[in-house]
This record gives sequence, C-alpha cells and structure tokens, in this order.
Amino acid sequence: MATKELTIGFDADDTLWHNETNFERVHERYRALLAQYHDAATVDAALLATEKRNIPLYGYGVKGFTLSAVETAIQLTDGKISAGEIQRLIELGRGMLEHPVEILDGVVDTLSLLAERHPLIVITKGDLRDQERKVEKSGLGGRFRAVEIVSEKDPAAYAAILRRHGIAAERFLMVGNSVKSDILPVLELGGAGVHIPYHITWALEHAVAPAGAEGRFFAIAKMTELPPVVAGWAARW
Amino acid sequence: MATKELTIGFDADDTLWHNETNFERVHERYRALLAQYHDAATVDAALLATEKRNIPLYGYGVKGFTLSAVETAIQLTDGKISAGEIQRLIELGRGMLEHPVEILDGVVDTLSLLAERHPLIVITKGDLRDQERKVEKSGLGGRFRAVEIVSEKDPAAYAAILRRHGIAAERFLMVGNSVKSDILPVLELGGAGVHIPYHITWALEHAVAPAGAEGRFFAIAKMTELPPVVAGWAARW
Repeated sequence: MATKELTIGFDADDTLWHNETNFERVHERYRALLAQYHDAATVDAALLATEKRNIPLYGYGVKGFTLSAVETAIQLTDGKISAGEIQRLIELGRGMLEHPVEILDGVVDTLSLLAERHPLIVITKGDLRDQERKVEKSGLGGRFRAVEIVSEKDPAAYAAILRRHGIAAERFLMVGNSVKSDILPVLELGGAGVHIPYHITWALEHAVAPAGAEGRFFAIAKMTELPPVVAGWAARW
Repeated sequence: MATKELTIGFDADDTLWHNETNFERVHERYRALLAQYHDAATVDAALLATEKRNIPLYGYGVKGFTLSAVETAIQLTDGKISAGEIQRLIELGRGMLEHPVEILDGVVDTLSLLAERHPLIVITKGDLRDQERKVEKSGLGGRFRAVEIVSEKDPAAYAAILRRHGIAAERFLMVGNSVKSDILPVLELGGAGVHIPYHITWALEHAVAPAGAEGRFFAIAKMTELPPVVAGWAARW
C-alpha cells in the first residue's frame, strides 16, 4: 500500500505561522499581573511546573494553558488574587484563540513550490478546534492532502499517521521547529527531519539535535531554504 | 474505493459509557457553591448560555466546560467569588478528567457480537486527549478499526470520515444517544441511524426525531437491542 511518492509533513505552530510570540505576549501580561507578589522568574517557573504537571490530563493547547495559568495565579497569591483578575486571565486565553494567524515568511511560496511535486501533510498537536481554526484562517488548507491533529507527537502517533496514509517511513520527511516533537520521533521510525528553529522555543520542547542520523537530519535557518534540501534528499530515490 | 462491507459507527459518551452523569454530579456541586447567590435554575441557565457562547471558540469537552464554569461563577457573584472557590471549580474539572470510565450495560457483549461481521468505528467529539484516554481506559479500543475524534459532528465531518475510510454513506449505520449529533447528519448523507437515548440529554443536544427517513432511522431502548436491528438492515444488501 506504500506509495513511491516522497511525502513531506509540516508542523504548524512556529513552523507555518507564529505561535510562541502569541504565548509570550500573554506571559508578559501574566508576569505584570503577579508582579506585586513575585518576580518574573518565580512566576515563569511556577507556571511551567503547573503546565508540565497538567499536560497528561489536559494535553497541549490554549485551554489547558489558561486553566494552568489560573491555578498558578491562585497558588502564587495564596488565594489573594481577585475574581476580576482571574476573569482577565480567562480573557487573555480567549484572546489567544481569537488571535489572527500570522504566516511566517516564505511559507506560502515554499508550500506552493513543493506541492507541485510532493503530497504535503500538516501534523500538529493542541486543541482540536483551535488547530482546525488556524488551518482555516491561514488559507493554506488547500495545499495539504491532510491535516492531522494529535494529542502527542511521539513515534506511535507518527507511525499511525504514516500507516493510515500508506506512507513508508523512509519516504517521509518532517519539517518543524521542535527537535523533540518534529524530528526525533520521525528519525526513530526511519524517516528524515528538517529542523527550522523559531526564535522562541517553549521550555517543554527543548531537546538536543540528534546524532547518528547521517543523511536523514537537516538543519536550515528559514523556510525558503527547504526546497533544495528536499530536492537533494529526493534525488536518492 | 468503497467496500461492500456494512460499517457501524458508535458515538462514545453516553452511548458506550456514562458521561452526562459525570457532568450532572459536577452541576450539583456547582449549584451548591452558588446557592447563596442564585437559585438553581438561574445558575443552570447562566452556565448553559456561557457554554453555548464559548463553544465556537473552545469546542466541546471538559476543559472548555471548566473555563465556562469559572467565567459564569465570576459573573453570577459580581466578582465576589473567592479564589479558593475558583480553585475548587478547577479541581471539579480535573476530577471529571480523572473519573473512571463506566461502560454502559450490554456494550461489551454487543460490540463483540457485531465485530464478528462488521467493521466498527468510534466517532466522538470533545477534547482530544480526554477522548483518547476514555477509549484506552474503557478497554474497548481493540474492537474498533478506528477512533475518530472530531470538533463538530456535522455532515461535513461524517463525510470526511467516510471518504477517508472508503465507506459509501448508504452502507454506513451510526449508533448514538444524540439525534442532533449522531443521527441527523448521517441521515442527511444517505446513511442510517440508530438512536439509543441516555437518561439525561445535555440541553445543547436536543433535537426532534427525523421524518422522511423510512427504513434508515431506528430507535431502540438499549444496546442489547442493536444486533437484530443491524441484521435487519444488513439483510437488504
């Protein structure tokens, strides 16, 4: 059932469009709201600890982030935070969901070019509705054969997607800003990965670049450098 | 690509396992928490209005429900609710996510029987991680060829699932407790539907039973009545 085509997978947040800048804007307001109680480093560390603890239950995305932000604020203020301030946190979360989708430089042209030769798939994690909304708002949906929204980007999740689409792992190349979520699990399956760093990386996505994946791991600075990498990789088949 | 098999789709919440009883338990505590401010009917109406307003942004599921419950509590108390009480609401939400999965009577045997002759698929809406967790905790996953989690159960969502699995609509039968989400959209596509009411229906799922779908709409009282309905429907092919 595996096709001979070379399929390219794309992460979405911070690969196709800005996302961490949206979170970072909210983090700044969050620190300001709690500045009378704690310094910024304490606030950041407490919020990250809550998020990490809650991810197995909430999964990724804005709704779980908002719940973790409220929980952390109550904890950091010993319950002294007002209901009005908590309402502001909920509105910050809502603002993130309503935020316009800002496509990264070079994405539209690069996708148009690559779509002529390869099936393209979006593989992203987060809240179902929010991720669907972003694909729709981006106007990029038509360039992709499929949009796959998963709760965790681990080897099992990628393997299920490849199986469903009849793609052999060695004929699959994944492009994304997170070495941990976009590159390592795909290399583990025998696929290839292209890392394009975003200028901010969420602490829970940090990972070291892989060793021992010669010819299957590429690092580039921006999206417009992708087509020659793909062409070089595709030339092997 | 359409197969000759007759595929059966199952809704999950309140069709395979209890769900509204879990929400109802939380609603009772919610009313009690706000009883000093408003009567139960006012609390219920305000919460439902917030949920309805937020669904386009949050989608379905426990995380969005929890955020709506916090927002409504702040509004109904004019901001007088304490941070400690809001923390209790967040814990109620977490309790829903951690709640054991209680499979409905007759489900295990009925699925085992039907799986011998038909491909079975779960089609459910809600939070991605939460729905995956419930399928896993239920131990029923192995009986299903696929688990599809969607953000809205409308004709477009069902059509996409049928297309992806190569199922012709007229050879598809959907089983669920919500006429609005499980039956009407499938009938619209030309498929068949079996309604099994649950003893509680969420206000946003109310709908009237369809007219003009002779031979494609069935209503039964419990899961164990499903196999003869399926056999009768399948006998046509």
